[in-house]
Amino acid sequence: MEPTPTSDATAGASGTGPVLPGLEGSGNDDIVQPGQLAMPEVMPTTPSAPWFSGPFSDEDGYDLWLRYRKVADPMLLASYQAALKSVVVGQPTPTLTIAEQELEHGMNGLLQVTLSRSDQVQAQGSILIGTPQSAPQIAALPLMQTLAGLGTDGYVVESTMVEGKPAIVIAGNRDVAVLYGAFALLRHLQTFGSLANLSLASAPQVQRRILDHWDNLDRTVERGYAGPALWEWDVLPGTISGRYRDYARANASIGINGAVLTNVNANAQVLTPAYLAKVKAIADELRPYGIAVYLTAYFSAPSEIGMLASADPMLPEVQAWWKAKADEIYAAIPDFGGFLVEANSEGQPGPKDYGRTHADGANLLADALAPHNGIVMWRASVYGSESSTDRVRQAYDEFHPLDGQFRPNVMLQVKNGPLDFQPREPFSPLFGAMPQTPVALELQITKEYLGQDTHLAYLGPLYEEVLKAETFVAGPGSTVAKVVDGALQGQKLTAIAGVSNVGTDRNWTGSHFNQANWYVFGRLAWEPEASSQSIAEEWVKQTFSNDPNVVGPVTGMMMASRQAVVNYMTPLGLVHQMASQHHYGPGPWVSDQTPLDCNPTYFAQADARGIGFDRTTTGSDAVSQYASPVRDTFGSRATVPDDFLLFFHHVGWSETLSSGRTLWTELTERYSAGVSAARDLGTTWAALQGKLDDERFNEVAGFLKIQADEARWWRDASLDYFGSLSGLPIPPQYEPPLHPLNFYEALTCPADVTKARCPDVYTP
Amino acid sequence: MEPTPTSDATAGASGTGPVLPGLEGSGNDDIVQPGQLAMPEVMPTTPSAPWFSGPFSDEDGYDLWLRYRKVADPMLLASYQAALKSVVVGQPTPTLTIAEQELEHGMNGLLQVTLSRSDQVQAQGSILIGTPQSAPQIAALPLMQTLAGLGTDGYVVESTMVEGKPAIVIAGNRDVAVLYGAFALLRHLQTFGSLANLSLASAPQVQRRILDHWDNLDRTVERGYAGPALWEWDVLPGTISGRYRDYARANASIGINGAVLTNVNANAQVLTPAYLAKVKAIADELRPYGIAVYLTAYFSAPSEIGMLASADPMLPEVQAWWKAKADEIYAAIPDFGGFLVEANSEGQPGPKDYGRTHADGANLLADALAPHNGIVMWRASVYGSESSTDRVRQAYDEFHPLDGQFRPNVMLQVKNGPLDFQPREPFSPLFGAMPQTPVALELQITKEYLGQDTHLAYLGPLYEEVLKAETFVAGPGSTVAKVVDGALQGQKLTAIAGVSNVGTDRNWTGSHFNQANWYVFGRLAWEPEASSQSIAEEWVKQTFSNDPNVVGPVTGMMMASRQAVVNYMTPLGLVHQMASQHHYGPGPWVSDQTPLDCNPTYFAQADARGIGFDRTTTGSDAVSQYASPVRDTFGSRATVPDDFLLFFHHVGWSETLSSGRTLWTELTERYSAGVSAARDLGTTWAALQGKLDDERFNEVAGFLKIQADEARWWRDASLDYFGSLSGLPIPPQYEPPLHPLNFYEALTCPADVTKARCPDVYTP
Repeated sequence: MEPTPTSDATAGASGTGPVLPGLEGSGNDDIVQPGQLAMPEVMPTTPSAPWFSGPFSDEDGYDLWLRYRKVADPMLLASYQAALKSVVVGQPTPTLTIAEQELEHGMNGLLQVTLSRSDQVQAQGSILIGTPQSAPQIAALPLMQTLAGLGTDGYVVESTMVEGKPAIVIAGNRDVAVLYGAFALLRHLQTFGSLANLSLASAPQVQRRILDHWDNLDRTVERGYAGPALWEWDVLPGTISGRYRDYARANASIGINGAVLTNVNANAQVLTPAYLAKVKAIADELRPYGIAVYLTAYFSAPSEIGMLASADPMLPEVQAWWKAKADEIYAAIPDFGGFLVEANSEGQPGPKDYGRTHADGANLLADALAPHNGIVMWRASVYGSESSTDRVRQAYDEFHPLDGQFRPNVMLQVKNGPLDFQPREPFSPLFGAMPQTPVALELQITKEYLGQDTHLAYLGPLYEEVLKAETFVAGPGSTVAKVVDGALQGQKLTAIAGVSNVGTDRNWTGSHFNQANWYVFGRLAWEPEASSQSIAEEWVKQTFSNDPNVVGPVTGMMMASRQAVVNYMTPLGLVHQMASQHHYGPGPWVSDQTPLDCNPTYFAQADARGIGFDRTTTGSDAVSQYASPVRDTFGSRATVPDDFLLFFHHVGWSETLSSGRTLWTELTERYSAGVSAARDLGTTWAALQGKLDDERFNEVAGFLKIQADEARWWRDASLDYFGSLSGLPIPPQYEPPLHPLNFYEALTCPADVTKARCPDVYTP
Repeated sequence: MEPTPTSDATAGASGTGPVLPGLEGSGNDDIVQPGQLAMPEVMPTTPSAPWFSGPFSDEDGYDLWLRYRKVADPMLLASYQAALKSVVVGQPTPTLTIAEQELEHGMNGLLQVTLSRSDQVQAQGSILIGTPQSAPQIAALPLMQTLAGLGTDGYVVESTMVEGKPAIVIAGNRDVAVLYGAFALLRHLQTFGSLANLSLASAPQVQRRILDHWDNLDRTVERGYAGPALWEWDVLPGTISGRYRDYARANASIGINGAVLTNVNANAQVLTPAYLAKVKAIADELRPYGIAVYLTAYFSAPSEIGMLASADPMLPEVQAWWKAKADEIYAAIPDFGGFLVEANSEGQPGPKDYGRTHADGANLLADALAPHNGIVMWRASVYGSESSTDRVRQAYDEFHPLDGQFRPNVMLQVKNGPLDFQPREPFSPLFGAMPQTPVALELQITKEYLGQDTHLAYLGPLYEEVLKAETFVAGPGSTVAKVVDGALQGQKLTAIAGVSNVGTDRNWTGSHFNQANWYVFGRLAWEPEASSQSIAEEWVKQTFSNDPNVVGPVTGMMMASRQAVVNYMTPLGLVHQMASQHHYGPGPWVSDQTPLDCNPTYFAQADARGIGFDRTTTGSDAVSQYASPVRDTFGSRATVPDDFLLFFHHVGWSETLSSGRTLWTELTERYSAGVSAARDLGTTWAALQGKLDDERFNEVAGFLKIQADEARWWRDASLDYFGSLSGLPIPPQYEPPLHPLNFYEALTCPADVTKARCPDVYTP
């Protein structure tokens, strides 16, 4: 007889009652322990878990936005099936074969048909793909002028007559452009676009559309929330994960064409021969998808792994070392993209260790890479390198004087804001301020400061806000987008980089909605002036459903989500109120960090009189780094947008804002609005039950519950703390905090130091 | 025009040549960088990566041994299809529904048919499943006597007549036994068993078949090599990963019925209400699969999280605290299994901190659990708690005197060997030496000391070796298996525990072959006297192929693999020659660890005269912990098996062994044989190309290359080091080491501190 309830858990519900007396195993399992007969029947009559959904789940998120589920609308399906029957490829190449297979795979799912392959255009229903060089039928079409406008990466996808037969042609000047076109057609079908007079054409505004992986060689990921890093350094190059190609495919589908494999907090080991063999193996996998690999360069590598006594950029032996290293890399990886460098920041070595400038350092590497067409992406963010009255001034102060001193193959890589990927910051004043230097925009896709894996925060509006920000460096229309795409200042070298949120989690990004941030990054890097709302809608259709009752609410949730996070974490222009190290929960009271300008108290500058960092002419004067009239708009209390109020101004608690409320009431209002908005996300989602697969529905629902609870935690902890300084009570129309300040200050979460999510915080 | 080779990598191979002159993007992508025209054509004409295999791979290992691929033999398939057409379930319950769905899913794959469901047995082809209580048709069969012999977990699966119609019945006394029977039938089909006169019946010899997860609350896994831990503490209980059920299903398929969720190096937080809510959510998921959850108990939890001043087991308030805690747990989880405890070892607190014995400590928890039928599993391994002349003596010395002092619901959990999961150790002398105490066997499934994720080392023969070891405590036939299954000493409470190798890697266990160790653990825990060879064969058939040209070679590889590892790491009874902390590569020279009895030099006791640890009566006398005649066999140079020679004896370098070789030559021979065997694994595997899916074939091939290289590293480093002591040269018939000793001693691998796998080591 079974000795304990261990494996008899289901007996109660199954109606079998107690085990039959007298039954004995062939061994010795007949012990009866005290109390066994009193064992409770444990199975609830209504199981809370979905036992009956079967042991397999096919919507685990791995397929991302490339799910290719059968088109649900029968009329549309019939029209697609009539027009899409076979694929015609001329001279096959690895990339064209991938495009062909993707079309076959997509039609197999969407249309439930198997495309035939042919050398010849059929009477109808052919998709003709290729370049003028690979397919004579394409060369024969009157496409020369169209193609001439598409550059190297642009594509045309259109209905046309080929040899007198109606067909769809997917063409570009290079194979990878054709692959982009194939994905564009599939996106069109997945979003239920019409094939009548089909004419899609698009060329990217930015040349280099790059993911920066902050991935370490031990497979940890700095600020990664999606499991270990993709790159399996320990078993490369002998073992090639199938995931490398799936990663490349996802990137190609949204136009990403570069990947920096390693963390900006770099490790020189990756430049050793053993590791370069591993890098080559990855590069070989990504190449057919049009993706080049880049590496981060540890500035003192010549002494770390090269046995030189110094890494001084002015020493001939150092220059020779980098030149030889570049030659070695390109011998293995002829299309290597170049180096991304963080120097003299966060403890990384750099040229200033030798009394040289950032330009000296960047040019050293640029000269080594130039013969191979490689580039240097030199990060403009520098922290803690020297004391500063205002950390947000540092990047501009340090780099603006260097404009004109960089080699032509150096880009300065500038974060969207002057601080560090906050829920909201003004744009960095370096955009437009370096007219002689190609400036790349660096965005963060991983949500270090916006709730990491669990909180829903669609970053499209954040990206759009910075891209559309007016710098006024050359009058109206001088947007950040126009600086970055080179149009404004005639830059030839252009790039947008995003700090990747991808890991080995099954759903790639730690949550289903985080996939949308990867997606919108790629789509905006291709077309920086696109609408984040349209991109959200297109993502929802592909990822969840074309049902308007899903598309509308989910797009609405996404578009509201980032402002919700701003409100419950850092409203009214506050920044960096996150607790130290993990940057997850609230820590407005934290003041013990070194250097001092890492502390939330430093950033908020809150005291009995008021709150906010004076960056006007009466304060740090960071505002003067902006061109006029931006500096005037931000610098004046009368014109500064509320969204940046406390970023630029110290404001008294009882001063009246544009809303007519006092600052204290407005702050309470915004924190509370953030909590309400977080709760609304859950309510909206709950109404979608049954319209989506259970697996993703349930996971998202669980995460939204966490988000609503933690929004409250953020609000209450912040209001408790600021209230302790202002001495003002929470106005009576608002919910009082659940706990007093000392409760929140005392929270420590030893079990999960990376996030310090505190389960206790949810319960009053 | 494209400025760099970044995204033009495929142009060379595609035959398109240079980009058309005059093409310009709509943006600013027309920069030409120096040297561009000299850009190399980078695409090799023969791609090394399998571009043409399509973007999807369906053999990523996630399905484990439950792949259910279509039966390839048409005759067999027809016979299966004729006999398996519908499934008949009486009263449905969660567990029976899972069994039914598993059969449907399995037949759908294996037979490509959809089973019909019915309440009635059909004219032919019905599978009738259930218990006598759930299905009247089963109660009506003449199965009473058979069922009476099957205990609570045993099943019968047989062809029989039901209501005059030929059918297959799957029956047991409890629902979970029926689930085990369903998996047994599917295993039978997957291994191409005949349905003629089908009669499968089996009951487990051991009651509790448990996986111990050394999983921490931050999702790291101590000695885990398969990604983050399964349990998503940070988002539980709101979010339930679908993986919990897939994990439970895999366990149920091999009869595992318990899971200790947390690390033996414990964290008291898991006993707080917030975490217990998470544990309950996991338990609810595992329950229908017959799996009970257990937790590790941090001994000083009453003071850590309970605010008591002391955790002294004799204090009434401490006893009351544990009692209340147990009540709290069982209110949420009525079938909770109990506590696993490591106390006063590896820095963990325990009863000795208060001057109490291990029995006092275990009984404290046992009394709290007893009213709920819970048990305590108290680990017998104690390290570093006090100085010892011989660490392998410690467990026996400490626990043997306590026999008879434990409550009846306490089990002593004893590792297979007296040291620590080495590639080979003699069995622990505690087996059989505690006749009044239920003793659980603890095996390690994760390969801490046997090559971790990459090296192939099938542990079946290791487990079999210990289970079949003769303790002689009651004469011949007193095997460890008979101690553990309770037959020898009349124990009523029986258990086998395995330290899990499961994580969130897609293939679950870090490599495809590591899945076999999970499998063989479950199968041997069910039937401890089964043959590891038969289990290997059955696993290969289900996991890879029934093709005899696959089954034979792969089973052969598996059966040879563990001895290969023993030879290249620790031949002739050597133990613990692994480098410190990571336990991956060789470190025979390491002597700087504290305490001293953690050092490889301590374990090998090598010097100019010879090598080996004298554990005979002239040495530590650990050999006398064994019953006679084992102590005499091991204690005498004349009778000790070579496999344990240096474990028990210090032997001169030039002494002659039974092989006729000197010790030094024999040592060289064995290390070299290990390298040869590791190379043979790769050769055998290479011949299987085309017989297996590419994805798994390639990954395994890559790992086997690493193993062969690292076997050489192990051999060369070890022989260099021992040669430096013996002063003897490598005999001329053997390969000389690739590098001198100082090369191996100097290796440090900053990039991968968890494994210190050194890429440099492979290249001369």
